[in-house]
Amino acid sequence: MKIYKKAILPRGFSAAAVAAGIKRSQKLDLALFYSGLPAKAAVQFTKNKVQAAPIKINRRYLKQNKEYRAIIVNSGNANCFTGESGLRDAEQTTRVLAKVMGIKKESVLIASTGIIGRRLPLLKIKKAIPLLVKGLSRGGIDKAKIAIRTTDTITKEITAKINIGNRIVTICGVAKGAGMIAPNLATMLCFILTDARITQPALNKALKIAVDNSFNCITVDGCMSTNDTVIALANGASHSNLIETHKHFPLFVQALKIVCLELAKMIIQDAEGATKFIRIKVGQARNFAEAKRVALSIANSNLFKTAAYGENPNFGRVIAAIGSSGIETKEKNLKIKLSPLHKKDINVSVSMKNGKASAVVYTADLTPEYIKINAAYN
Amino acid sequence: MKIYKKAILPRGFSAAAVAAGIKRSQKLDLALFYSGLPAKAAVQFTKNKVQAAPIKINRRYLKQNKEYRAIIVNSGNANCFTGESGLRDAEQTTRVLAKVMGIKKESVLIASTGIIGRRLPLLKIKKAIPLLVKGLSRGGIDKAKIAIRTTDTITKEITAKINIGNRIVTICGVAKGAGMIAPNLATMLCFILTDARITQPALNKALKIAVDNSFNCITVDGCMSTNDTVIALANGASHSNLIETHKHFPLFVQALKIVCLELAKMIIQDAEGATKFIRIKVGQARNFAEAKRVALSIANSNLFKTAAYGENPNFGRVIAAIGSSGIETKEKNLKIKLSPLHKKDINVSVSMKNGKASAVVYTADLTPEYIKINAAYN
Repeated sequence: MKIYKKAILPRGFSAAAVAAGIKRSQKLDLALFYSGLPAKAAVQFTKNKVQAAPIKINRRYLKQNKEYRAIIVNSGNANCFTGESGLRDAEQTTRVLAKVMGIKKESVLIASTGIIGRRLPLLKIKKAIPLLVKGLSRGGIDKAKIAIRTTDTITKEITAKINIGNRIVTICGVAKGAGMIAPNLATMLCFILTDARITQPALNKALKIAVDNSFNCITVDGCMSTNDTVIALANGASHSNLIETHKHFPLFVQALKIVCLELAKMIIQDAEGATKFIRIKVGQARNFAEAKRVALSIANSNLFKTAAYGENPNFGRVIAAIGSSGIETKEKNLKIKLSPLHKKDINVSVSMKNGKASAVVYTADLTPEYIKINAAYN
Repeated sequence: MKIYKKAILPRGFSAAAVAAGIKRSQKLDLALFYSGLPAKAAVQFTKNKVQAAPIKINRRYLKQNKEYRAIIVNSGNANCFTGESGLRDAEQTTRVLAKVMGIKKESVLIASTGIIGRRLPLLKIKKAIPLLVKGLSRGGIDKAKIAIRTTDTITKEITAKINIGNRIVTICGVAKGAGMIAPNLATMLCFILTDARITQPALNKALKIAVDNSFNCITVDGCMSTNDTVIALANGASHSNLIETHKHFPLFVQALKIVCLELAKMIIQDAEGATKFIRIKVGQARNFAEAKRVALSIANSNLFKTAAYGENPNFGRVIAAIGSSGIETKEKNLKIKLSPLHKKDINVSVSMKNGKASAVVYTADLTPEYIKINAAYN
């Protein structure tokens, strides 16, 4: 397996981006990912009970259709809490794109990130779509990965290449998210493009495993966005052997996990206001879910996160957070280790003596800068 | 009903406090509440799965015994995560007090607040107990209410007097807790002393109702302490009619609710670093639990709390927090109102259109001062 710290489009894909005027600044804010061949799609959406319009439209298309060609993404407006009008705006966006490209609207997936509660500027988007389509190229990924950003200060991109039956399969991922900013801008979006030949069940299963071990293992402030979306498109253009849940699967999952985990770690590294990158490992738990729950309980404790910022090795806060998780635990079985807190990378290790499972969660510290940014943002 | 913003001991009770040297400063740190008559006790303890030694000792005595005479409380050390030694230290404290007073050790309840993970200075406590007992008086409550404090900047005290069958029944409550400080100091302790004549089931039920509507409805940083304790002692010295779950109960509960709620609100008002007092009302929910869960989800959202600090009327953050609660809700049914954020007291009102139940939760804003305090504290 080879890993490249850069987005390299797999065969059959192109991308583009334009400044459509959705953001007040004249920055790139509308991106398109396109596959020349029909692709299978797997998705993971936010578990927030309030879900934005684009997520609802995707769910509808995923029921109606099996093959996808494009993902259209805007930044600057989340199209959330916008009611029936918001649904129509999202549907119209896919319809206009489909018409310009000569494809079915149900083969277009959609994602939005930005302010909650304001209507999408549909006219601007409609006007920008022909230009967007015209711009499609393999190099267009370098603009698209920027257009999906909001308050991100770094671009999140990575590519893995694996060998399946003597064919190179490429998995490219780009993401946005800066965690510590408001959830109406902190939406995590991730788009994974691969030329793998893979069955639908295998793609679904692989994405679920990869997301559970990456994006679902990071937390900045415990706030779930209404727009969080991960979409994977697989177009088969590598002409590799078919990947099935029982064939070539471990290698593909391993690569997809790395892609997702590296992107997730970049989001934590970009958490605004943060001065520490914190890795929390909980071991000897009854199962993965238990280990993760304990780790997240520590990661979401304001008191632990503030102690990390203050470089204050306060075991009491870790203990209280473990107890808060609701997991049954015996005090005398708990072992807690904290690496030196004056470094940027901090490791917290908890051993539960309940079983053999473990989980790793990543987070950042809670700083005065976080408050300043979020207090000021409108 | 008459309410006094001051602790006035009911008949048959006395109190005392001394500086035993548990705190590094020479401040009051050991308090005693005493009833001349045997009293019934009701308790509510932390739901944190890691529980401090004094809570374990109380649970043991509550099984073994039905009548109580004293509560001994120390500040400066939580006696938590101290293993078998910690249990012995707590038990020894009750034993020594019982011996000096000539009562059963199982009639002594105990509470601690302070640093987690350090042994209680038992010798100092043993040495101080005779002086403590000597100091018992009705006026001693004015020292005891100070001795239970840690980082509190105000004393939390209140008294309610009600008339039951032409007898005055007094309910006096004192509490400590300053929320935004670390959980190893942020423990919430509350002691309620009443001369009510009341059955055990009525006392238990009344305390549960009062705590559910007060201390369980406040949150500063979502962190549960390992030591949180509410103890109510009822000694019957008012010689009032007997309060039972079906007789004189509503008036007693109403008074107890007011005592607990006012103390809980004082804790929020004392939250260090806070600049806002935030009241969140969720109405038209299916039931109280649903309403409270949604309200707590908002109250624990760092992003909402930072917006409150920044006086930034960000509806998106409230919506995202509601969605995060996990409660099923329809976007179009949600109604959200925010009072002007430039005032110190902020009201958030959410209407769910799911049913007829409601809940009110209190919290404070999240400020740079909170981070500074908690980053620096050792």
